[in-house]
Amino acid sequence: MTQATPQKTLHPEFLAQAKFLVQGAELLPASVEQLALRLQTAIETGVPLRIKLGLDPTRPDLHLGHAVVLKKLRMFQDLGHQAVMIIGDATAMVGDPSGRNKTRPPLSEEDVQINAQTYLEQAGKVIKLDTVEIVRNSTFFNAMGLNNLLQLMAQVTVAQILTREDFNKRYTENTPIALHEFLYPLMQAYDSVMVKADLELGGTDQRFNNLLGREMQVAYAKLKGEDVSKLNPQMVLLLPLLEGTDGKVKMSKSYPEHCINFTDTAEDMFGKLMSIPDDLILRYETLLSILPPDQLQQHAMLLEDPVKHGINPRDIKAGMAKYIVAQYHDAQAAEASEKGFVDRFRNKELPTDMPEATLDAGQAYTIIDLIAQHELAASKSEAKRLVQGGGVKLNGTDKLSDVDATLTLNAGESVILQVGKRKFIRFTA
Amino acid sequence: MTQATPQKTLHPEFLAQAKFLVQGAELLPASVEQLALRLQTAIETGVPLRIKLGLDPTRPDLHLGHAVVLKKLRMFQDLGHQAVMIIGDATAMVGDPSGRNKTRPPLSEEDVQINAQTYLEQAGKVIKLDTVEIVRNSTFFNAMGLNNLLQLMAQVTVAQILTREDFNKRYTENTPIALHEFLYPLMQAYDSVMVKADLELGGTDQRFNNLLGREMQVAYAKLKGEDVSKLNPQMVLLLPLLEGTDGKVKMSKSYPEHCINFTDTAEDMFGKLMSIPDDLILRYETLLSILPPDQLQQHAMLLEDPVKHGINPRDIKAGMAKYIVAQYHDAQAAEASEKGFVDRFRNKELPTDMPEATLDAGQAYTIIDLIAQHELAASKSEAKRLVQGGGVKLNGTDKLSDVDATLTLNAGESVILQVGKRKFIRFTA
Repeated sequence: MTQATPQKTLHPEFLAQAKFLVQGAELLPASVEQLALRLQTAIETGVPLRIKLGLDPTRPDLHLGHAVVLKKLRMFQDLGHQAVMIIGDATAMVGDPSGRNKTRPPLSEEDVQINAQTYLEQAGKVIKLDTVEIVRNSTFFNAMGLNNLLQLMAQVTVAQILTREDFNKRYTENTPIALHEFLYPLMQAYDSVMVKADLELGGTDQRFNNLLGREMQVAYAKLKGEDVSKLNPQMVLLLPLLEGTDGKVKMSKSYPEHCINFTDTAEDMFGKLMSIPDDLILRYETLLSILPPDQLQQHAMLLEDPVKHGINPRDIKAGMAKYIVAQYHDAQAAEASEKGFVDRFRNKELPTDMPEATLDAGQAYTIIDLIAQHELAASKSEAKRLVQGGGVKLNGTDKLSDVDATLTLNAGESVILQVGKRKFIRFTA
Repeated sequence: MTQATPQKTLHPEFLAQAKFLVQGAELLPASVEQLALRLQTAIETGVPLRIKLGLDPTRPDLHLGHAVVLKKLRMFQDLGHQAVMIIGDATAMVGDPSGRNKTRPPLSEEDVQINAQTYLEQAGKVIKLDTVEIVRNSTFFNAMGLNNLLQLMAQVTVAQILTREDFNKRYTENTPIALHEFLYPLMQAYDSVMVKADLELGGTDQRFNNLLGREMQVAYAKLKGEDVSKLNPQMVLLLPLLEGTDGKVKMSKSYPEHCINFTDTAEDMFGKLMSIPDDLILRYETLLSILPPDQLQQHAMLLEDPVKHGINPRDIKAGMAKYIVAQYHDAQAAEASEKGFVDRFRNKELPTDMPEATLDAGQAYTIIDLIAQHELAASKSEAKRLVQGGGVKLNGTDKLSDVDATLTLNAGESVILQVGKRKFIRFTA
């Protein structure tokens, strides 16, 4: 929360920065020009903006869905601003205070520490960890007495909180809302007061909470008798939720098969990115802030009619995949995974490096059994379906279709069994 | 909160006690027999019931409206039970936490102490102070951390609190409810948990809060893993609001002219009680627990048709007034004030004891000025109205009607000026 500055000339450079930052996102309740002016003032005065991001210490495993907001944070860092990450441990250590949900025990001090550490290590693939400011909100909430808590609650009305979409829905549908749930958005908003945030980043599901943070900053300034007209309460930058690789629902741990995880191997990450539907390319490029606005516009133009422009969307996708793999691994790994991918799928070549297994010479093995045994499919029945669907090949070319087919090798003989697009094993007798 | 006991024989004595206690009140959510059984068990086991009454440390001046609930508490004391008075200082010391209401500053530690002391001194006219247990709820609320507060809030739903009549009305009418207001009934309910109340006394406007106290006891027993089936959570005894002396609206400091205050003189108290409409006699006798059920029934019968039964309601009223004056002063004062009253109004005699003032001999004083100067009326204009209305007499008989009338005394002469029914002054020259 810096002090407001008088109107002045806006340099095009900062407007371009602001446009890139807001790309694909929703800036509230301010204009791109206002953001640009604050970016400019921050640099001119040498007082960086404080960019707040809340971190949930209950879920440390990150996927590209989380990268959307982390990438934005990194962009602010690169522009010289201060990333402030809040670890919401004050409530995580409470668990379910109703006592009804025995399956949601409170997180211990240690759990929070471990989860936050894991989260940060993974987030370090995107943001610069050396300059990030980490704030555990237990530091102020655990010391907060009844008086201050009542004061916090007094800043909002019941009707106001009930406008929050999920609360409104539950209240209207007579689904119980325990009263303590009303406190969580207030606490999140109070975090903004305490860390003096200039801008808060959040998913679109955080609209109410993040805007409340802004209001709370104004309310507390009033309580302190400050001149509110001189205040610059936090702006809010809301980011859409990224779709999973199937392009249907948002990327979520509930659908692990459509998740691209920060911890995936370069090869897996590249392969998964190449598997997204073409009409998702632009969305990924936008939300993951891969291209600046002008280049993004060009891609949009090309992808609208690839034939007319003589391009293959697959090439644009590969460029994006390389960029992302390079970020989570490195440039070499990105090159290698691209080459591996091209070799396997475009040139129909087999990989050079794959698991190996030995079979007894002269013995007949059912293909289905081999697939299941070596965990190339989750079960025999899945293996059967894969064979029936034409997804199982020998030596890269011989497609199998008989579910009862067997494999018999002579001594010294070797064969490659391929299941689906990316699973291989070499059997030798 | 005692443990439930198996069903057993109920002695008629305890049923009679319970009936007297419940007279004019509403017992929730239990039957008179259940209360009787708990009274009996308490006496048999030597473990008195704990009777809770919340005390508001912001308003120390008591009138007969407060006596309704205090009298009930005294009856429990007389039956050997434990009165537990809660001083709700935890929130009183917060004041208006919204910061909007500058006119409602928080009470200081000292204010609370003084108010509570004043309250108790006055309440001591009705209850026995030597055995009452005083609990300031700041002792547990000031030490309550965020975790415990969230746990408290988790015990109720938003919909449940919005059923409270005043909240419901305000929510429906779009009158803002600040969120912290939701916490007050929870805190009051938590008081019941902490003091292990067996029964809570309250006005009918406390229905929601007091019943929540009962629910909260059950909820916390569950949290502690106790066997709830063995629990006897608090019963609730709701008492109606007593009407002011005009019989129209409830007795309240907003209408001081219709209040009978604990600190009124015996004479004033007697006079005010005699001024209530006849159809309020039974209501006062009931709510102030002046008569046991059988005698009350008899009064009801007599008052229904006084002529047929050859009685004058005024005599019943005088009996009630004497009883009440004896309680707030003493038996002698009650006798004296009755006699004074009879002398003045029934026998049209003047009181023997009254203020005196000296006038200059031979000088003419305007009656209006004399009335105003000696504070027999609030202002000259009121004095005028009183004269015009025939409420001003000289020497008990000469009714004045001229607002410009003057009084001139010769040396040694004396006259009594009477304003209204109970104000007298003797002028001597």
